[in-house]
Amino acid sequence: MSNKAIFYHAGCPVCVAAEDNVAKAIDPTRYDVEIVHLGNDKSRVSEAEAAGVKSVPALVLDGEPFHINFGASLADLK
Amino acid sequence: MSNKAIFYHAGCPVCVAAEDNVAKAIDPTRYDVEIVHLGNDKSRVSEAEAAGVKSVPALVLDGEPFHINFGASLADLK
Repeated sequence: MSNKAIFYHAGCPVCVAAEDNVAKAIDPTRYDVEIVHLGNDKSRVSEAEAAGVKSVPALVLDGEPFHINFGASLADLK
Repeated sequence: MSNKAIFYHAGCPVCVAAEDNVAKAIDPTRYDVEIVHLGNDKSRVSEAEAAGVKSVPALVLDGEPFHINFGASLADLK
């Protein structure tokens, strides 16, 4: 599988709605979908930041960041 | 097919990136994906607004709006 999708969230209600809808709508036959909870896994905040993520929930598709609605700023998760 | 995905955009660069990535990542076996250009089809702005869309690009999944990054305000498309 060549496509990588990483869904970053922090467990907030906006994040859960995005995960239940947008992340789950991604085609699993074409994308390897990984769900990362930045509140629980703070070691990956810098990785998300390097990909251009400013807030969560966000979906990074093959390295390109897409912010979905607004739950929390990345700065608040550090 | 029971799930409905409507991707609203206005042809802006942010919209095109979201369409090429997020809209195209949706599983076509589970979702009937429709792409609506609100700049060309202004008659559908009120429908998007009724679904809670405030800006484009936005993805409405089974009636729930998800704003993806920010291209243009819906108010500017009227």
